[in-house]
Amino acid sequence: MDSVSPSILQFTQFESQALGQQLIDKALYYKADPRIDIQKGMGKRIGCIFLNPSLRTRVSTQIAASNLGVEPIVLNMDKEGWALEMREGAIMNKGTVEHIKDAAGVLGTYFDILAIRAFPSLTNKEEDMNDFVFSQFVKYSGIPVISLESATRHPLQSLADQITIREHSSGIKKPKIVLTWGPHIKAIPHAVANSFAEWSLGMGHDLTITHPAGYELSEKFTKGATIEYNQKKALQDADFVYVKNWSGFNDYGKIISTDPSWMLTEKHFVNAPNAKVMHCLPVRRNLELSDEILDGPRSLVQKQAENRIYAAQSVISHLI
Amino acid sequence: MDSVSPSILQFTQFESQALGQQLIDKALYYKADPRIDIQKGMGKRIGCIFLNPSLRTRVSTQIAASNLGVEPIVLNMDKEGWALEMREGAIMNKGTVEHIKDAAGVLGTYFDILAIRAFPSLTNKEEDMNDFVFSQFVKYSGIPVISLESATRHPLQSLADQITIREHSSGIKKPKIVLTWGPHIKAIPHAVANSFAEWSLGMGHDLTITHPAGYELSEKFTKGATIEYNQKKALQDADFVYVKNWSGFNDYGKIISTDPSWMLTEKHFVNAPNAKVMHCLPVRRNLELSDEILDGPRSLVQKQAENRIYAAQSVISHLI
Amino acid sequence: MDSVSPSILQFTQFESQALGQQLIDKALYYKADPRIDIQKGMGKRIGCIFLNPSLRTRVSTQIAASNLGVEPIVLNMDKEGWALEMREGAIMNKGTVEHIKDAAGVLGTYFDILAIRAFPSLTNKEEDMNDFVFSQFVKYSGIPVISLESATRHPLQSLADQITIREHSSGIKKPKIVLTWGPHIKAIPHAVANSFAEWSLGMGHDLTITHPAGYELSEKFTKGATIEYNQKKALQDADFVYVKNWSGFNDYGKIISTDPSWMLTEKHFVNAPNAKVMHCLPVRRNLELSDEILDGPRSLVQKQAENRIYAAQSVISHLI
Repeated sequence: MDSVSPSILQFTQFESQALGQQLIDKALYYKADPRIDIQKGMGKRIGCIFLNPSLRTRVSTQIAASNLGVEPIVLNMDKEGWALEMREGAIMNKGTVEHIKDAAGVLGTYFDILAIRAFPSLTNKEEDMNDFVFSQFVKYSGIPVISLESATRHPLQSLADQITIREHSSGIKKPKIVLTWGPHIKAIPHAVANSFAEWSLGMGHDLTITHPAGYELSEKFTKGATIEYNQKKALQDADFVYVKNWSGFNDYGKIISTDPSWMLTEKHFVNAPNAKVMHCLPVRRNLELSDEILDGPRSLVQKQAENRIYAAQSVISHLI
Repeated sequence: MDSVSPSILQFTQFESQALGQQLIDKALYYKADPRIDIQKGMGKRIGCIFLNPSLRTRVSTQIAASNLGVEPIVLNMDKEGWALEMREGAIMNKGTVEHIKDAAGVLGTYFDILAIRAFPSLTNKEEDMNDFVFSQFVKYSGIPVISLESATRHPLQSLADQITIREHSSGIKKPKIVLTWGPHIKAIPHAVANSFAEWSLGMGHDLTITHPAGYELSEKFTKGATIEYNQKKALQDADFVYVKNWSGFNDYGKIISTDPSWMLTEKHFVNAPNAKVMHCLPVRRNLELSDEILDGPRSLVQKQAENRIYAAQSVISHLI
Repeated sequence: MDSVSPSILQFTQFESQALGQQLIDKALYYKADPRIDIQKGMGKRIGCIFLNPSLRTRVSTQIAASNLGVEPIVLNMDKEGWALEMREGAIMNKGTVEHIKDAAGVLGTYFDILAIRAFPSLTNKEEDMNDFVFSQFVKYSGIPVISLESATRHPLQSLADQITIREHSSGIKKPKIVLTWGPHIKAIPHAVANSFAEWSLGMGHDLTITHPAGYELSEKFTKGATIEYNQKKALQDADFVYVKNWSGFNDYGKIISTDPSWMLTEKHFVNAPNAKVMHCLPVRRNLELSDEILDGPRSLVQKQAENRIYAAQSVISHLI
């Protein structure tokens, strides 16, 4: 995407360990005093565009903006009657009512920053891998864009996760982080898993990824991680265990297994007694992750959700 | 509900005559100068959660918050794609995407106060009577919660009603208040009727309730009121007549009568020439209440609606 | 409509050339420094009521209000579960849940200004021509109302268009403006075309309207314009060409032609080499208007969209 708008700051992926550290530092600075920079964004506006529904992301982004004096305006484009045409040169004589070129151009005129959520189709692998829909907004809006989860990545979630890991790593020299697949009944996007791997590796952590055979993620995001098909082995001596479901990447968008033995319970932690458990929420209890873990002392999920505010605030502050 | 979070202030029901008077005083103070306390809530946020649609309640709460410098953020959880699981221990392999525990926990982290609307099912009497859905938010959010109408009560409406009665009672020693059932084509919740009875009795008023046989409300709310099945007798010498439909309570959620003679017209007031007529809105004209009354000088309905702002403002101010 | 509430300022149609010039002047003043009057509307609120979906209009109105310190609150009454009864004296025992009288009355109490979008049915010509739905809000709210597009007019769009024409007219003595019909697959309202004609003529411009036979607009709006059925002749020496589809007015709401030769491409401009092209957006590309024009130097569409902010800001400032 940088090739499209080289001169405009974006927040769509992991960039560098140095920037990562700087964003985490800034987030913790805001967490200590959320409204310390209330004057910084006065008179600026962020347009939050949701092509898919959102609870945490929408509210945390609104709060983050508002903490900086930036006015957030939310547009639910999935439900508010605006089917966008994405194809260049399309003859628009069907269901789409406006071309992304024109809509993104106008939004670029109305706002100082856009924040956009655009899930993958999970049917067209190539378009998804190119973040096709999200990239159209970046290309045509002409202003800084923040990803609120694209087809391939969820960088604000991953920044919040890294903030949480930093907060709970004191005394651990080099934490062992495990990303484990968990069962689900639906075909779920890869964005959270991809981004978590990209950021954990980028921040220099020791990352092990474990999942049933067939659930290999794209190497674009996992290169440098240890892949271990035996969950028990993977969990040994873990400091942080990130639970997430995703659908097949090679067999794209498919559910390959729903093996319930992959759902973590206390007995999975015999060899990792101090491990903390993370999940981006929403979580399907007793399917992806047990009540026992979620309601117990290992769970960091509420802390991750809280850090979504300061991750967003750090990034908005960085872009304005 | 107080048993769940004894140390956290809530506004979910009538508490005491003293607090009632204090809230009415405060509301009238704000009505005289709505933005006098604009600094009081600066930096605070209220999350307004609607599991059911709303016009007056949503807008009046937003305005009330904003008059106090509190930032309101609205979440329409009925339509914004978030089916919540309410059952403890559920294996979430069906349609629900997030457990109330996790959602309410996050909302409790993001906001300083929550305001929640959760209508009854009108099919599961026990769950409704326990305000099951609403109580889950109270239980798991860990912050002050304001009811914007639960299964059993609508306390902000009742506070607005009591403000309106105070404003129009000058010169009346002990006003006679009548709550009369009116016809409707749908099965309507009991919350407004329950709360109006609870507050009118709690504030020490003389309350008569009249309805066709079979429409008896729960004694939990009506104990101390005169129950009079003859509407004509009930209306005699009334100062305030509150019109409301509700469905059966004993024969739970059922429509027992649609007798149009119960709809008030001018001729119903021969023995109560000075009576004022109240309704919480929305009202179905010429079904629940006649144009003649609604468009005539007896009607206080617009004044009640206006007082919704100051009722909410008084309560938010009380909680922060 | 003025007959209904003669003493209340409205912005529902073209009033006079003097007011038009004043509103354009003010808009350009705000465009140069959008927040220069940020104190002017402090403590005031505008209710933006959408009975039909909106992107540009919603966001530009919110931004305009906010630039003046006016708090905007948006109500999507099409989707947020509020079917309004419009008929006087109706017995409301069907699908409508609230009468416009009561709803508009409450909104008039809650807000300082209302801004309302209410599209035509395109089936009941008489009701549409009387702006029936929109007029009910004006009649019953008792406060200033701004049209965000009624059945017959879209005056904020037309004001934005006139601002854009002023900005691009330097050096042109008396610009020749052409309003040309363009093809579409749906039956589209007349409001934008009507208002554009009304404002262009009202502002003293030379206006030619061109369309296939059968697409004659109401003379109420076009009196004084040259009607030319030959598009080629109409376009000759044009300075500004406004493209818009509309459905039949005489054969009300019908699609009479979809002739693709009416869609403008570069070759249509051989005899109008300097003509600028305008469209209110959203535009169906390569159906109403070609990529070639929209992506080329003739297009003013993004500038029109940007001017929507300052048109709304000028009008809100005028009314408060």
